[in-house]
Amino acid sequence: MSDPAPCPRLSYVLTLSCPNRPGIVAAISQALFELDGDIAGAQQFDERESRIFFMRVVFSVPAGGVARAALEQALAALAARFDMQWSLRESLRPTRTVIMVSRFDHCLVDLLYRWRIGELAIAPVAIIANHPRETYAHIDLDGIPFHYLPVTSATKAAQEARMTEIVRGTGAELVVLARYMQILSDSMSAWLAGRCINIHHSFLPGFKGARPYHQAFARGVKLIGATAHFVTPDLDEGPIIEQDVERITHADTPDDLIRKGRDIERRVLARAVRYFTECRVIPNGRKTIVFNP
Amino acid sequence: MSDPAPCPRLSYVLTLSCPNRPGIVAAISQALFELDGDIAGAQQFDERESRIFFMRVVFSVPAGGVARAALEQALAALAARFDMQWSLRESLRPTRTVIMVSRFDHCLVDLLYRWRIGELAIAPVAIIANHPRETYAHIDLDGIPFHYLPVTSATKAAQEARMTEIVRGTGAELVVLARYMQILSDSMSAWLAGRCINIHHSFLPGFKGARPYHQAFARGVKLIGATAHFVTPDLDEGPIIEQDVERITHADTPDDLIRKGRDIERRVLARAVRYFTECRVIPNGRKTIVFNP
Amino acid sequence: MSDPAPCPRLSYVLTLSCPNRPGIVAAISQALFELDGDIAGAQQFDERESRIFFMRVVFSVPAGGVARAALEQALAALAARFDMQWSLRESLRPTRTVIMVSRFDHCLVDLLYRWRIGELAIAPVAIIANHPRETYAHIDLDGIPFHYLPVTSATKAAQEARMTEIVRGTGAELVVLARYMQILSDSMSAWLAGRCINIHHSFLPGFKGARPYHQAFARGVKLIGATAHFVTPDLDEGPIIEQDVERITHADTPDDLIRKGRDIERRVLARAVRYFTECRVIPNGRKTIVFNP
Amino acid sequence: MSDPAPCPRLSYVLTLSCPNRPGIVAAISQALFELDGDIAGAQQFDERESRIFFMRVVFSVPAGGVARAALEQALAALAARFDMQWSLRESLRPTRTVIMVSRFDHCLVDLLYRWRIGELAIAPVAIIANHPRETYAHIDLDGIPFHYLPVTSATKAAQEARMTEIVRGTGAELVVLARYMQILSDSMSAWLAGRCINIHHSFLPGFKGARPYHQAFARGVKLIGATAHFVTPDLDEGPIIEQDVERITHADTPDDLIRKGRDIERRVLARAVRYFTECRVIPNGRKTIVFNP
Repeated sequence: MSDPAPCPRLSYVLTLSCPNRPGIVAAISQALFELDGDIAGAQQFDERESRIFFMRVVFSVPAGGVARAALEQALAALAARFDMQWSLRESLRPTRTVIMVSRFDHCLVDLLYRWRIGELAIAPVAIIANHPRETYAHIDLDGIPFHYLPVTSATKAAQEARMTEIVRGTGAELVVLARYMQILSDSMSAWLAGRCINIHHSFLPGFKGARPYHQAFARGVKLIGATAHFVTPDLDEGPIIEQDVERITHADTPDDLIRKGRDIERRVLARAVRYFTECRVIPNGRKTIVFNP
Repeated sequence: MSDPAPCPRLSYVLTLSCPNRPGIVAAISQALFELDGDIAGAQQFDERESRIFFMRVVFSVPAGGVARAALEQALAALAARFDMQWSLRESLRPTRTVIMVSRFDHCLVDLLYRWRIGELAIAPVAIIANHPRETYAHIDLDGIPFHYLPVTSATKAAQEARMTEIVRGTGAELVVLARYMQILSDSMSAWLAGRCINIHHSFLPGFKGARPYHQAFARGVKLIGATAHFVTPDLDEGPIIEQDVERITHADTPDDLIRKGRDIERRVLARAVRYFTECRVIPNGRKTIVFNP
Repeated sequence: MSDPAPCPRLSYVLTLSCPNRPGIVAAISQALFELDGDIAGAQQFDERESRIFFMRVVFSVPAGGVARAALEQALAALAARFDMQWSLRESLRPTRTVIMVSRFDHCLVDLLYRWRIGELAIAPVAIIANHPRETYAHIDLDGIPFHYLPVTSATKAAQEARMTEIVRGTGAELVVLARYMQILSDSMSAWLAGRCINIHHSFLPGFKGARPYHQAFARGVKLIGATAHFVTPDLDEGPIIEQDVERITHADTPDDLIRKGRDIERRVLARAVRYFTECRVIPNGRKTIVFNP
Repeated sequence: MSDPAPCPRLSYVLTLSCPNRPGIVAAISQALFELDGDIAGAQQFDERESRIFFMRVVFSVPAGGVARAALEQALAALAARFDMQWSLRESLRPTRTVIMVSRFDHCLVDLLYRWRIGELAIAPVAIIANHPRETYAHIDLDGIPFHYLPVTSATKAAQEARMTEIVRGTGAELVVLARYMQILSDSMSAWLAGRCINIHHSFLPGFKGARPYHQAFARGVKLIGATAHFVTPDLDEGPIIEQDVERITHADTPDDLIRKGRDIERRVLARAVRYFTECRVIPNGRKTIVFNP
């Protein structure tokens, strides 16, 4: 009750990967301790095949204490010693996000609602659509810049150049394809590697390609699902971040599947975006590490 | 409290399918009513594409009342009128079942346990294994005939001939491939069409073929599943009866997937067998109607 | 391909309950057949304890054929014969619905979105809130009348009188308490019996009363849930229509539970409203029959 | 391919809790590093309310290297410094387990099967039943000592004294009440605190007490569940380790609930026992920390 007021602290998330060998955890925790860092949580994973070690550390330092530059210097020294790839992020800074959408707006509406009530730590810096603003007349965009970029095979290169400008110009850290039904070019996919999340409306690897709910109906499966994954040039083969399913029956029509699918897509995409903003996802070749809460 | 003792009744399940047209339900319910039948439950489904109508009716008649022959005669008349395929089964008679198994016995053990405590209305009339009796030394087979039928590519035809004899000789109504890791010949599959259930250890149509848990591990999916389906000559493409999934993470090894998979396989196969014994499953081309409780 | 154009038909849902006895299904299906009715689907349930029989029948009649009055006359005759309670509804007519809301608007936003895209067959005729319109500034109400009815213990009777007027004046068939955090009076609850659905943010009967997520946190459960139920004077004891759960861990704070809870509440309430609009829910004392698709 | 053979290592699990303060992780990882320990995985949790820090570390040391005594000495020094409670366990040593059972044997059968195929790292040292050996005639106990200890209110104290002897005499580390339908005395519960797991056949805290499936049926819930928890003198209030649910409908009878419940009970209890044997469960007052894989 008569505790001194806690001194304000800055919170960071550190993620890293490196070849596994003894002493990594000791070195990192010692380095953070010496910088007055307090570890609030840590998760680690030792990939047995490749012998790669992955770690996520949440820690804080006194607000008036060590500067970010000093933190980075200490981490760079460790990185050199352990051949480490690393990333440091202030926990409370929202992720600058571009959302791309086509005609179906359920994922867009859902992401914006979660952002508005403070559930999702994104800062939407642009919405890019291949349909005009009127298509989304009922949505209060709240000042988020809206870009109508229609696309045909003839204009695709120019449209992607414009997308690239927007991503660059806004300093976006994340691009979300929220049921954006256009395929990105290989070069665009490669440029966005590890920072572009797509929601695929099937339970991959079943039902790749177009109209997956119709495929599921034709095959007579008893559960349908959705998959959030990083975009790669190899369509429908990107590293999977999150999946979920729902039960269907013989009585469900393709339209019922589409309706049930919307619910799955929304929650799977929202979870994947949340994991990304909290630095819980680390790409690992064709797969991902997801340090769940 | 002073109710007269209820007169004993015989309970039946009628399943049928026919081209849809008005008057089918009226005709069936009227026919049963005239035979003193009391409908305890009914489920129906109108397949919109093919305009085929499917129905399952549970009803009872007074024990000393109309004979089965009279029931069948009435149903045959309806069948002629409506171009109907139908099947009539006494509800309480257990389904004569042959269980086939390879080295992994978790599904066999599970089915036998459910049978022993009266949960599953099967009568196991034979167990066929391609491993000798010692492999299953810890299992109390309780007098169920055990047939050791090893199989090589050279002996496959002879082995299947022996299997056929056993199925015929026991009057089996159902053959369950309880992780029986051998592929049946096309002719055997065709002969057993609609009465042979396989458990496939993947969430079909993902990961067809061999070692599906290793495939799932390599692809980095976040949920794994199992599929119970009717056996057809087209491997892994038979009509699906039941599926289920469980969540996995990046930290699960192929061995963990195999372990979690056993739990899914057991409950998916047990449900499919239960639905079959209760006449809830009606094949419908590449798909099934499953009238869930 | 050269089929004659199908004659347009009017589609109805009939729900009924009566003491069980042989001949009900035959009588109903015969009556519908004689009126040119075509049964598209039917579900029935025989409650063993009370010997009450419940049925839901979806059927259509030619558009220029039998009038609704004639249908009702035929059903009234059957009702008299079998001591039947029944209800007949045109399938395609949306359910006139009043939505009530307090500060948390996630269920309101979700219901309105599902209505807008045609997923939920409701016609929202009024929104009643105990917070002013500005609280929901970001929501496009699309012309739905909004009523700000603040409530204190002193004004509760007057407020409920106003609510009653609105329900009457709009001809509402359904009142949805979409996280409306006020308790209705006994008389109001009784007046709305069977047509007022509440979403309770716990997995009833665990954690009745206030702040259920905090209760769940304190108890250390591993799954949390939500419950949609009919409102009755006996708070938190109304007949349950739908429930669902999500997994939590020791690391989830009460705020995390509230966040995960919002997702469960939205989908559970939306399902319950959908079941209601499709006449799938029949109250049965303290319980409900839900004829799932 | 020409790697030197890896030197064999001994694997340990360390679990600990202490008041949270900076430097704990650094100190532990440094101490293990100095003892040639290689950390294969670690999980930690900072309980915000009590400011207690919990940690689980999996590490290995060279087989011919530091002795267990030296490890314990190093840990004792850390424990003194950080006011730490800790426990050290060889990972591969199976947990000596007493299983107690009443008439329903589905959990017993399931645990023994998982043990037999090497899925569950227990060593069953005794089975205690209040029914005679014949009740379990179909189960191959494989030499596990079986103790028939019938119990009445008059003999309860003597029976528990005999139980205590068995637990002591076998050096049991875990007692599993595998649907053992007798209530332990307060003193027995207290003596077994933190090492006795019960499976309760309801989704606690709903439906405490007897016949929970009948309670669930009467209340008309749409999901039923089961709960594995540590036994405490306060019946049905022990710290929850694991829970799960399954969907039911109005058509499910109490017998159906019991049947579906068996499946949930088996998998929930098996998971809880697995978590215990892998030192993933740390009691935390009325709750548990479960470091899931």
